[in-house]
Formats: sequence, structure tokens, C-alpha cells
Amino acid sequence: MSDAPRHGPETQARACLAIILAAGEGTRMRSDLAKPLHRIGGRPMVSHVIAAVLAAGAGRIAVVVGPDREDVGAEARRAAPGASIHVQRERLGTAHAVLAARDALADAPDDVVVAFADTPLVTAATFDALRAALGRGASVAVLGFEPADPAGYGRILTEAGRVVAIREEKEASAAERAVGLCNAGLMAIRGDRALALLESVGNANGRGEYYLTDVVAAAAGAGEGVALVTASPDEVLGVNDRAQLAAAEAALQARLRRDDMRDGATLIAPDTVFLSADTRLGRDVVVEPNVVFGPGVVVEARATIRAFSHLEGATVGEGAIVGPFARLRPGTRLGPDVHVGNFVEVKNSTLERGVKANHLAYLGDATVGAATNVGAGTITCNYDGAFKHRTTIGRDAFIGTNASLVAPVTIGDRAYVGSGSVITDDVPAEALAIGRGRQVVKPGWATTSRPRKPT
Amino acid sequence: MSDAPRHGPETQARACLAIILAAGEGTRMRSDLAKPLHRIGGRPMVSHVIAAVLAAGAGRIAVVVGPDREDVGAEARRAAPGASIHVQRERLGTAHAVLAARDALADAPDDVVVAFADTPLVTAATFDALRAALGRGASVAVLGFEPADPAGYGRILTEAGRVVAIREEKEASAAERAVGLCNAGLMAIRGDRALALLESVGNANGRGEYYLTDVVAAAAGAGEGVALVTASPDEVLGVNDRAQLAAAEAALQARLRRDDMRDGATLIAPDTVFLSADTRLGRDVVVEPNVVFGPGVVVEARATIRAFSHLEGATVGEGAIVGPFARLRPGTRLGPDVHVGNFVEVKNSTLERGVKANHLAYLGDATVGAATNVGAGTITCNYDGAFKHRTTIGRDAFIGTNASLVAPVTIGDRAYVGSGSVITDDVPAEALAIGRGRQVVKPGWATTSRPRKPT
Amino acid sequence: MSDAPRHGPETQARACLAIILAAGEGTRMRSDLAKPLHRIGGRPMVSHVIAAVLAAGAGRIAVVVGPDREDVGAEARRAAPGASIHVQRERLGTAHAVLAARDALADAPDDVVVAFADTPLVTAATFDALRAALGRGASVAVLGFEPADPAGYGRILTEAGRVVAIREEKEASAAERAVGLCNAGLMAIRGDRALALLESVGNANGRGEYYLTDVVAAAAGAGEGVALVTASPDEVLGVNDRAQLAAAEAALQARLRRDDMRDGATLIAPDTVFLSADTRLGRDVVVEPNVVFGPGVVVEARATIRAFSHLEGATVGEGAIVGPFARLRPGTRLGPDVHVGNFVEVKNSTLERGVKANHLAYLGDATVGAATNVGAGTITCNYDGAFKHRTTIGRDAFIGTNASLVAPVTIGDRAYVGSGSVITDDVPAEALAIGRGRQVVKPGWATTSRPRKPT
Repeated sequence: MSDAPRHGPETQARACLAIILAAGEGTRMRSDLAKPLHRIGGRPMVSHVIAAVLAAGAGRIAVVVGPDREDVGAEARRAAPGASIHVQRERLGTAHAVLAARDALADAPDDVVVAFADTPLVTAATFDALRAALGRGASVAVLGFEPADPAGYGRILTEAGRVVAIREEKEASAAERAVGLCNAGLMAIRGDRALALLESVGNANGRGEYYLTDVVAAAAGAGEGVALVTASPDEVLGVNDRAQLAAAEAALQARLRRDDMRDGATLIAPDTVFLSADTRLGRDVVVEPNVVFGPGVVVEARATIRAFSHLEGATVGEGAIVGPFARLRPGTRLGPDVHVGNFVEVKNSTLERGVKANHLAYLGDATVGAATNVGAGTITCNYDGAFKHRTTIGRDAFIGTNASLVAPVTIGDRAYVGSGSVITDDVPAEALAIGRGRQVVKPGWATTSRPRKPT
Repeated sequence: MSDAPRHGPETQARACLAIILAAGEGTRMRSDLAKPLHRIGGRPMVSHVIAAVLAAGAGRIAVVVGPDREDVGAEARRAAPGASIHVQRERLGTAHAVLAARDALADAPDDVVVAFADTPLVTAATFDALRAALGRGASVAVLGFEPADPAGYGRILTEAGRVVAIREEKEASAAERAVGLCNAGLMAIRGDRALALLESVGNANGRGEYYLTDVVAAAAGAGEGVALVTASPDEVLGVNDRAQLAAAEAALQARLRRDDMRDGATLIAPDTVFLSADTRLGRDVVVEPNVVFGPGVVVEARATIRAFSHLEGATVGEGAIVGPFARLRPGTRLGPDVHVGNFVEVKNSTLERGVKANHLAYLGDATVGAATNVGAGTITCNYDGAFKHRTTIGRDAFIGTNASLVAPVTIGDRAYVGSGSVITDDVPAEALAIGRGRQVVKPGWATTSRPRKPT
Repeated sequence: MSDAPRHGPETQARACLAIILAAGEGTRMRSDLAKPLHRIGGRPMVSHVIAAVLAAGAGRIAVVVGPDREDVGAEARRAAPGASIHVQRERLGTAHAVLAARDALADAPDDVVVAFADTPLVTAATFDALRAALGRGASVAVLGFEPADPAGYGRILTEAGRVVAIREEKEASAAERAVGLCNAGLMAIRGDRALALLESVGNANGRGEYYLTDVVAAAAGAGEGVALVTASPDEVLGVNDRAQLAAAEAALQARLRRDDMRDGATLIAPDTVFLSADTRLGRDVVVEPNVVFGPGVVVEARATIRAFSHLEGATVGEGAIVGPFARLRPGTRLGPDVHVGNFVEVKNSTLERGVKANHLAYLGDATVGAATNVGAGTITCNYDGAFKHRTTIGRDAFIGTNASLVAPVTIGDRAYVGSGSVITDDVPAEALAIGRGRQVVKPGWATTSRPRKPT
């Protein structure tokens, strides 16, 4: 979604540096984890922002982190291997934070985009709109929104339709506080003006901080154009505590669900379906209530994901039926018309067309040929306490219930494994294999020997 | 709910034809499935509408479908075996669609009700109210509602308290657009006037279509009475895309949950309980969060359905406890005080009073006598790859853990099956049956032979 | 939460009697269970109220129940063993109900708090605020709130900023109905004035009932001070039917979730997590969507509770991972870094540091030593039909898949149990134990003998 390329003709020819501010302390998170590493949609917030600016055409990424936050830098480089990491040693305000990336600014790209790691839902389209405003001649482009309650936000001040300043609420007059248009924090600045504008910012305010927002007054005061781009309040949600983290997750989920429904999937109860940013649902896929999609899931057309299913790193073929109560773990590949039913776990396994594993089974590190039936309670014993081994089952085979398949083991096409068998040796095609005790009956035993509750 | 008979004294003696328009293309659904066949509450939308008009006393049903939509006609006939199916070959507007059922109209019933397959939540009581208005002398009865935002809807125009016309928004003046009362689309027309009124409709409008709504102006212009019936916006939700399908599902679920709570069931978290139109919950039933009821479920008084359970086609006896994490599939009959616990699947089986199957089990095609204990991991091996077979277990028996019961097989009253046994032959009453290998111990084996991770 | 002590310096030195009215018939619940015994957050409503007044410093509790409601009294005494139970034999109004506890009033405590069993969300802090108002000299302290729609509530009437009366809606003038400040019902009364004020209340009103609210006019008329304390509408939700019971549950859950997030736990989708009043989540605990916490759960720092998990009476150690699809039942103690995975049930068992039980298993009445691996399908056969027995497994052992451990049984450190084994005898440390049939293969069997569907 936000990952889709979104830079239009106005911005294609312009070089862009994105500076991502990820040095906030995040005290209100009450966490040992750095705030930019908290996740929404299964991905750290800083990486959402990186994905969006990359999609908006940023060719260079600079990430500003706090002292001793190598972990944030490492995550940023996972998301953008070429990113440069800059440390803000003192916390003297947002303009000061941007200047921690002074080296990157010195290269004078065409556009500089400043983004915040704790504002993770801004789309590539919005970053592109900020850049496009620079392409049309503005020195600065700011992002505004109109929240239900503007209290606490900086206000965007205009005169005769032109943006003239951004005023932090604590510095604002009563008239300025009456303004409903608020500052989302994000900004784009012309590369050849960025350093001068940032260095012009002073700290003569109540907190003694260098505010990035003062760049606006500086540019406007110099007669340069300041453009305004607007976004919905949901898109610019900021995350300062766990409740806001949950709100951002909810907004992201709403966006993902809406997109999937628009594209032709049925979500019977959208609010109960949890998607990842990269989930792909084909046409006429039906998702029942209460399904969780972790990263890396592709569901092909006409498949049904039934209630209470959990999928990660899995491909589900056309017309397949998964669940209820199924778990597909990474490396699962289900062919067309496969059925994986209740209390079944599949991991790192390929089930070819029409395989059925409908009840209480674990298939790990296995390949199962087309049309094979895997009985209830079947378990691939893929782990010996030290190593993992593979199980290979042929086509049109039948694995009886409660079978234990001790890997490495191969079971041939059309072979038949009896219920309750422990299979330790390969089974040829067409063969019957049984490995279980013979039944013994002791008549009348219950009368004399069955454990009884004291009466 | 909407299935309950709802035609009162005013309509009992009058013959009613319901014409259901189900020919819309549904392009915005982005689906290969015809729009009327998309489901809410587990039932195709067209069948919801048919159930409601049947409950409102419609003795004859005519369904208008698009070309090559035999599937819609077939579903309609499943819901109403006597329904006549009519094909609208060209899409020339709603009045034109109704006239595709000209044959049915020619029989001149007392009342003609026109309903829409993509407006699936209208209740029988509302259809009955439309009919009753005809019984009181009106030629036409329209259904109005007041949405939060009327933009896009046709407006119901009144003069001196009388309905005089319905104006499509695109034909409306600014003054008409200011009207908040909107047209839900549904309509009832006197049978002896229907054909003449419909044929009087022209297509001299912006889209060149024959609007059913113009029947109102025709009747009013002729001095005939046009009655107004009103409904809540939720009841007349129309479905044109998957997001609206989800909204209709949510509205239906809210209605079903409200009714169940009113009747004395506790839904701890109603928003997480998904019901079918035919779900029946007895007095003092408790439903924990996250439960899905498919079609055909009856839960008797004082039973508890615990979290994460999934039931379809099942009866749960008084005081029984199901779940958490239980799945009851069609044909399940649980007697009073039965316990079915976590990760247990029951299908086409009867569990008599007091049976316990509390953990990780599959009971398929089985009968289990009263007070029997089914151990964890027990599986009925009911399928041999070609046929299904039954398992019969007597009263007060004990099935040890991880047992495989290879059907067809019978286990007698008070019999005892040892843990891990594969039972292939019948076990007499009172007998002990064991079918498993004998334990062998190799001392010190781990020291020399246990697989070790490389160090 | 509401259980935390909340009485401040103003109330510490004052003796307090709480009278809890629990005699309402609850007809609209449509239940055989007394209304005060219906549960929210897993606890009967009457006990929520008792916990809150105890936390607000009530040293004596008097509970007024209806005739033949010993069950309500018994629950009250479970929550407060010293509570006195009083029966209201006729239902003649709320003042009459309070006077059923005349014996308790006769002891003349400093403060009398009157609470309602069907208003279960009032916090200890609010009860304390009512008491504190008495400490500052008021004779009566009432609790007001401003609902979105005041229709149906009694109004709190003020003159020149002083509370002068509470008017039931049915007795109110049009001007009085325009008042938005409503009466929540709760009240505190000076102990030395309570009996006289209550006895002064008459029943000359439309219903012929003695209204507790008339105490306000009596005190104000005598020139005594009536204080006003206010609460949010959510806090004073009253429960008269199942829909309101669900609303109270939702309000309680919202409060519990908010507190957990504030204290540093991540709830990815808070609306899908169901907590008990006593759930304790450590710092940086992550709870995925769709998790149910029953009573008695403690989750230590950095543990992850994955989707679709259900926990009751369990402790989860630091960094442990539970689920998805795990069930922890009472008596479960998971050490640090334990993994309990999908379709695994643990009951009354201790799993020491680093144990893994990742798939389809049942561990009941067991102790499992550190670092041991419990294979998929492992089941402790802890029940013989009459008695429960323990399974003891040592450190660093390996239990193969589909093993049945027939308790009582002990498996030593580093021992290894082969897949599919039934273990009936103790296994020494370091030993290999196998108990299963030997595999037999019949080549070509499928060609001749495999069951085939008729063609």
C-alpha cells in the first residue's frame, strides 16, 4: 500500500533526500524498546516511514537517532540498506535534530523531505505531494490537517491565503489558537535552501528549543513561497504512548481492509481481520471473522480463509479452504483446492493440488503429493532434538489417523499407512504400511479392576 | 427473525405477488459471483429478501435476473420452490426490470410488492406495512428513510402532507435536494393498477431510463393515494460493493445479537459473536467472546459456549459446556451436561448426557453413550479413503488418551480402552482393550546415541 | 483497579458503613439467575460493588437482598466475609430498601454509603469522594452525571449553586426535565443523620414508593449541606437487561485495557483483548489480537501472548511465548523463555525455563524440567477414570511426537522417548524408551486391497 511507488511526473527528475527523525525518547511508551522500533502491522514504525519515502522517490535516506540507539539504526538499514545514520547527542529541538544530518544536507539534493518515525501512517502519495510543491517553486511545503480538537498542536498561520508561520501552541496567541488548521510536523524544503533556512532558526522561545517549524516563518519572511498540503487526521496520527500505538494500528488496519474489499475480497467482519502491509488477497477470496495475516501471505482467487485462522509466510492456492482453526506458518505452499482444516499446523511444507489435511495434524518440513489424504492426528516427526528432517509423501496416498511419520522418510504414491502407525522406514508406492501393537482384549476386566472413584 | 411470519389482519385476506429485482450487474463488487448471491449471515442476499416477503404473506414470487444468470434463479428457487424466474435482457431502468415479470403481473393479485435483492435487511414487518397501506386504499406505498447524508439518494417529495413524487438526485432541483426524506427503492402497488402505472412510465430523463419511482408521480397525478412507510437507515442498507456488504453484515449481526440478548442470553462481548439468522439460544445461555454460529445451531438453556468456538448444524443440550476452541460440525447432537473442550472436533455424532471429550479429539460419525469419558487425543478413524464408517461407544466407558478407534467398531458399556491403543475389533461391555507396543528401555542410550546439535 | 485502596486522608479516620442494595427483581434480564449475580469481567456485579466500597474504606458492609435470595447473600459473603445480609420483604422503594438494613444504621457510623449492585462500575475513588464531602461537613453527598440523553433519569436540582432536590423524571416539571445533570443513584449520608433522614421520606408520589432521593430535599429543607460529586456516564452505567450488561462489560474492558497500555503493555488490537479485573501484564508484554484472560493471570515482562490464546489462573515467565491457539488452564506456571505453541493445553503444570511444547499437546498435572522438548501430539494420560496422577519429566529430555505418558510416571533428565510410544513405566535419566509396534510393509497391497470409491 504505502509501499507502492507513488512519485509522479513532477518529482521523477528531482533528487530527494529524506531525513527521518527517530531520536525521540518515547518516555510515555514506558518501554525498554526504542519508540521507532515499536510495530504496527507487524513492522517497526521507522520502517513504515522509510518504505513510504522510498516509494515517494527518496534516493537517499538519513536517519537521526538518539545516543546509544544502534538498534534503531540497524533496523533502518534493514529497511534501506544505503541509509546513513546520524546521532543527535543532545535534544535541543526538531531543527537541531535535522541538522544532525548536516553531512547529508551538504550534498544539496533538489528536495529534502523531513519525516518522523513516530508518525508512521503518512503515505507515499503525501510525501510526493510535498515534493511536487517544491517542484512548482515553493521553498518549503508543510503538511496540515484539521483535527476534531486542535488543542496541543502547532497551528498553521496564513495571511491572504499564504502560509506565513507555524506557531507552537504554547507560543500562540488566543487568536492563533482559534485556528483549526494544524501542523502535522512533516515538511519538504528545497535542497539549495535547506541548510541556510535551518541555520537561521533560533531558540528564543519558552522551551529554549530550535523548532523545525520556524523554517516556515524564515522562508516566508524572505519572500519565498511556502506551500500547504493537507492530509486526513488519521494519516498523521502521532504515536507517543501505547494507546496511540493501538490507534495507529487500527487506522492502518482500516486502510488495509478497505483496500482489500475495494479490490474484490469479501471480509465478512472486517474489524476482526488483521492484515499485514504485504498481504495479498485475490479476487473473490472470502475471509471469515477472526483471521490474522502475518507478513508474507498470498491468497489466490476464490480461496476461503475460515474463522480463527492464523497465516504467516504462506501461499494459498486457488479455491483452497483453510480453517477454521488452521495455522499456516512460514514456508507453507498450498496448491489449488487444498483443504487444511481445524487444529492443523503446516510449516515449511508444500501440499499439492487437492491434498486434504482436515483435522488435528502437524505437517512440518514435508512435501505431500496431489490428492493425498492426511488423516486426523497425523504428525510429521521432523525434529530429533538436534536436526530437522523432511517427510516426502507421494500422490493419492492415504495416511491413517494418529500416524507418526518419523523423518527423514518417504511414502510412495498411492501408499496406505494404517491408523496409529509409527512409520520409521520408507514405504514404497502402492504398499500398505502398519506399525502398531496388536489388540488384546481382557473380558470382564472393568468389573474387577477398573479404577473407581471412592463412593 | 425476518423469517417469522409478519402479516397482520389487514393483509391476511389479500393475495400478494412479490417481484424481486435481482438483475443488477454489481460491477463494483469486482466479483465473478452475481451480486444477489453474495452472502450475509451465511445466506445469499436474494434469499434473505425472499424469506422476508414470504413471511409478509407473498403467495407468489417473481424474480427478475440478468441474462445468463441461471445461478441466481436456481438460488431463488431453493429459497422459494414456486418462484417464477424472469430475464431482463436489456438494462433500461427499474420500471423496465419490473415489467420483465409482466406475466406474473397479468394475474392481477391484490398487492404487488417490489423488492431489491441488494437491499437484504428489510424486514417482513416493513413489507407487511407497505401492503397494509394498500389495504387501506392507497394505490402505491413507498418506503422512506432519513439518512445522515442524503446525497445520492432519490428524494420523496410531499405537498400538503401527501407524497407527490420521488425525484432521483440527478434530476432534482436545489430545493428538492434539501429534502431529507429519501427513497429506499422498495414499493407496493395495487395489483389492479400496477401494469397501467408501470406502462405509463417514460424515459425522458438524463439517463434515458424507465424509473420505477415515476410510478409515484403517475399515481399522484391521477389523484390516487400514495402512502409513505418509513424505516431506519440500517434496515434499507443497499449493497453495491464489498464495504457495503460488510456494513449489511454488521447491521444484520447487530439485529440478531440484540434479539438474543433481549430473549435472555448473555453475550459477554456481543460484537465478537457471529450469528446466523436461524441461531437459537435458550434462556441463560452464556456466550463468551469470539464465537461463530453457522447455520442450524440450537443451544438449549443454561449451556455455555466458551471463547473461540465454532458451531454449525449442531444442537447443544441443557447445561452443556462447549469450548474454548471447540468445533461442532453438522450433525452434532450434544445431550445435557456434555463437555466438549479445547481442540476437539465433533461431526455427525451424538454424545449422550454427561459425556466428556475435553481435549484434542476428533469424533466423527460416532455415538457415545452417557457418562463416557473420551480421552485426550482420541480419534475416530471414520474414513478409509473411500467410505465413512460409524463408531459406537456405550455408556460409562473410558477411552484412553491417544486412542485410534478404527471404524466400523463398537465398544461396549463400561469398557476400558488403554492409552495409545489402536482398536480395530469390537470391545465387549466391561472389557479392557489394549492395542499398543510394549515399552522397551535402553539405559544410557542418550549418552552415546542421542542426536546432538553441532557445537 | 477498582480494588486498589482509594481512601484518602479525609476519610481514613472515619468509620464507614456501606449499604448495598441488591434486591431488584431484574425482570428484564429474563433470567433465572438473580441480577446481582450476573457477571462482568468474570465477577458477579454485587462483588464488584463490594470490592469498590471496601477499597474506599468501608469497614462494615450491609447487603439488602430480595426474599429467597440466599444465593446473593452467599456471594456477598464470599466477597466480604463479615457482611451482614438483610432481606427486603416488600418492594416499596429505594429508601425502604435501605431501611431494611436498619440494624446496621443503628450503630451510627460516621459515613453511610448507599450503593447499587446493578451499578457495578463505580470506582473506589468515587465512593471516597462522596465520603470526603461528608468529612467536609455535608449531611448528604449525591453523585451526578451528564448523559447524552437525560430522558428517564432523575434530575439533580440546584438553586444558587446548592443541591436542593432530586426529582424523578415522572414527577418532574418541564423546566426540571430540561436539566442535564442527572442522579446516578449512589449517595453518602452522615451516619448520625441517616436514620432520621430516611425515616422522614414519605410515599406521596405517583408510584406510592419511598424514594431514597427524597433524602436530598429533606436535608436541604433542614438547612443542611448537600454536596455534589460527579462521574462520567460510563462509570455509572446501570444494568437492567442483557444489552446493558454487555455495555457494562465493554466499559469495564475499556478501562482495564487503557490501564494496561498506560503501564507499558502493547495490545495490538485492544478491542479484541478480554481482561479480568486481576490480570497483571508486565512491562513490554505484547498481546496480539484475540486473547482472553480469565481470572488469576500474571504475565511477566517481555512475554508475548500470541493471537487466539486463552489463559486462566496461569503465570507466564519473562520472555515466554504463548500461542497462537494456546490454552493455559489454572495451575499453569511457565518459567522464563518457555514456548507453548498452537493447539497446546497446559493445566496444573509447571514448565521450567526454556521448555518447548509447540504443537498439539496436552500437559496436565505435570512438571517438566528446563530445556526439555515436548513433541507434537504428546499427551499426559493424567486421568484413569477415577483419579488424577502426576507426570514428572526431567531437564533437557526429549519426548517424541504422539507419545502417551501414562501417569503416574517419571522420565529422567536427558532421557529420550521415541515417537508414538506409550510410556507406562518410569524412564531413567539418559535412557531411550520406546513403546510401539514394529513397522510391517505389505508391497502392492493398495493395488488389490485398498478401499475404492465406486466408479
